[in-house]
Amino acid sequence: MQNFSYYNPTRIIFGKGQIAAVAAQIPAGSKVLVTYGGGSIKRNGVYDQVAAALKAHAWLEFGGIEPNPRYETLMRAVEIVKREGVDFILAVGGGSVADGSKFIAAAALFEGADPWDILGKRAPVSAALPLGVVLTLPATGSESNTFAVISREATGEKYGFGSEHCYPRFAVLDPETTYSLPPRQVANGIVDAFVHTIEQYLTYPVGAELQDRFAEGILQTLIRVGPQVLAQPQDYVLRANLMWTATLALNGLIGCGVPQDWATHMIGHELTAEYGLDHARTLAVVLPGVWRHSRTGKQAKLLQFAERVWGLHEGSETERIEAAIERTEAFFKSLGVECTLAGNGVADSKVAAERISARLAAHGMTALGERGSIDPAAVRAILSSR
Amino acid sequence: MQNFSYYNPTRIIFGKGQIAAVAAQIPAGSKVLVTYGGGSIKRNGVYDQVAAALKAHAWLEFGGIEPNPRYETLMRAVEIVKREGVDFILAVGGGSVADGSKFIAAAALFEGADPWDILGKRAPVSAALPLGVVLTLPATGSESNTFAVISREATGEKYGFGSEHCYPRFAVLDPETTYSLPPRQVANGIVDAFVHTIEQYLTYPVGAELQDRFAEGILQTLIRVGPQVLAQPQDYVLRANLMWTATLALNGLIGCGVPQDWATHMIGHELTAEYGLDHARTLAVVLPGVWRHSRTGKQAKLLQFAERVWGLHEGSETERIEAAIERTEAFFKSLGVECTLAGNGVADSKVAAERISARLAAHGMTALGERGSIDPAAVRAILSSR
Repeated sequence: MQNFSYYNPTRIIFGKGQIAAVAAQIPAGSKVLVTYGGGSIKRNGVYDQVAAALKAHAWLEFGGIEPNPRYETLMRAVEIVKREGVDFILAVGGGSVADGSKFIAAAALFEGADPWDILGKRAPVSAALPLGVVLTLPATGSESNTFAVISREATGEKYGFGSEHCYPRFAVLDPETTYSLPPRQVANGIVDAFVHTIEQYLTYPVGAELQDRFAEGILQTLIRVGPQVLAQPQDYVLRANLMWTATLALNGLIGCGVPQDWATHMIGHELTAEYGLDHARTLAVVLPGVWRHSRTGKQAKLLQFAERVWGLHEGSETERIEAAIERTEAFFKSLGVECTLAGNGVADSKVAAERISARLAAHGMTALGERGSIDPAAVRAILSSR
Repeated sequence: MQNFSYYNPTRIIFGKGQIAAVAAQIPAGSKVLVTYGGGSIKRNGVYDQVAAALKAHAWLEFGGIEPNPRYETLMRAVEIVKREGVDFILAVGGGSVADGSKFIAAAALFEGADPWDILGKRAPVSAALPLGVVLTLPATGSESNTFAVISREATGEKYGFGSEHCYPRFAVLDPETTYSLPPRQVANGIVDAFVHTIEQYLTYPVGAELQDRFAEGILQTLIRVGPQVLAQPQDYVLRANLMWTATLALNGLIGCGVPQDWATHMIGHELTAEYGLDHARTLAVVLPGVWRHSRTGKQAKLLQFAERVWGLHEGSETERIEAAIERTEAFFKSLGVECTLAGNGVADSKVAAERISARLAAHGMTALGERGSIDPAAVRAILSSR
């Protein structure tokens, strides 16, 4: 096991009817900016619950944060924060709203000349406005981690940043808020949480037995509840399991003391930037390719995954590994998520392979994966096969 | 799944050589009281590492905190804190030192007339001195939770308290500090972590699938690494797995949204108070009795435990449950921990049953367990059978 540091101070407030609890979590006298996305919260009652909870607070709102939230949009919110003297951000939505709100919180207090430097130059974040989250889409784990991924429309760039200052102070997770989600977003969230777990688990063994068990527990739970949530969208217990599982998939815990991969995410981000594919769908496309390409280096963990997560005990090692990859692809497909470029509307995989490989090289990402062994040629090979 | 709130802000700093990290975690200019137990840290090099880490801080020390830390001892430390203007506590040791230090931290700022009220009258704790922990014994989880159990010598009472103000700011977990532990303490720690997990897991199902998987992962890890740690005490990876697992067993995570039992602990505390038995040994005695007594109410979870943790798939339900209980007893015995009163030097179980039942009744604990169904008669039945 590698040395590690783990710190996660986000207060999770989980369950039915808990949106009312935000009132006690935001200091009295705060001026709150409620941030949200496309407005679904106004149709499903979440906005009204938030408004009721904030009745004793001064607050204003900023809607329109996109999926793959845009720097340009977020900077308009930063202007409002500064102009209006906002001192607390309440993000209401999914991972994009949470991510975008982390950037708003950090950019509002950024002391450098250009807040883009937080993303483009990895300028350190030394402070951020306090942030709370009312989560409505289980997927990214952004509600209790330090990370955010932001896109710049003008240049087509997509970068991440992370800072302890951006940990949400609290996150309200009410599974009932997820009943009205479109099935496509639910499926994407399941795939996203699954691949987050894989990036921290499916590398090489370092004897981190409990981290492995926890990761396997997350994967088993997603496999069991994922398709059922889509089939029974009003089932509270299924929704609750999915919501809590997606949070635990990327709150730092299962990544403690283990090597991490993240090649699938890095390649996937470029696919989203180039072709506009949903984040989760890029992961479903790339992951099986990364596995087949890195089969030797990942052999021990692929076998453990095959046995413990998929219950595959028969056949040669190669057969078990291939079966585990095929089961995973079938699982994604059972959620309605296609695992090929063509299935996602990108007809020529050779062209995509060239473009994405070039994009990664241009961004200096030429040594991806837990061993840094995924170079531009490997990216081309991986994507050509998809 | 039940509604829950989860908040755990303790920063975990895990691994070889990490004691040096305390220097950066304690504010410069603090006056630190280093608290410890019987002095083993002076023989195994931990004290010297702490002293080296604190070379730029003003600090003094308070040794002699006992197993089952005593109110009388701790109040002497509170006196020192007040007299010397201590503003940070650094606990160096196992669960007893961490527990005792939480009480010192809370009592030093207690505004009521008598700090005993925190324990005896459950007086609320509204503030506590900041506390850090250098853990040397994996067992109680006290290094990253809010709880402490304190005994009063004068009256033979043993009470717990908990407050968010008592969360350690940080906990350093260096598995190398545990190499020199006596096997008896290691074994006790394994049993303690095992039973902490059971108290939060083995009740009745509420559809909390991930919490179940995590609990089962902890139990499986303890079962695998426990005996091996005793056999290979210098094995770093085994020690690291045990240390991290014991922390996760009682940091609040697996208890989220599930019913909890704690009858075994409540009965066990009285056995320690009455007969001076090691805490973990009382748990090993009581737990199988609680299971057999509550077999009907716990049936579904006992079967899940039998199947997922012990791999028992054959035989009738009754046979599988009894086999799981026997496997657990055999596991405790394989660690050198006896599971009967006689094996722990209490010859007459009937007398013990009467005494403990009376003690619990005197402390108002007449409705223990996840359903409140363990009354004094049940306690007598449970202990008579042990």
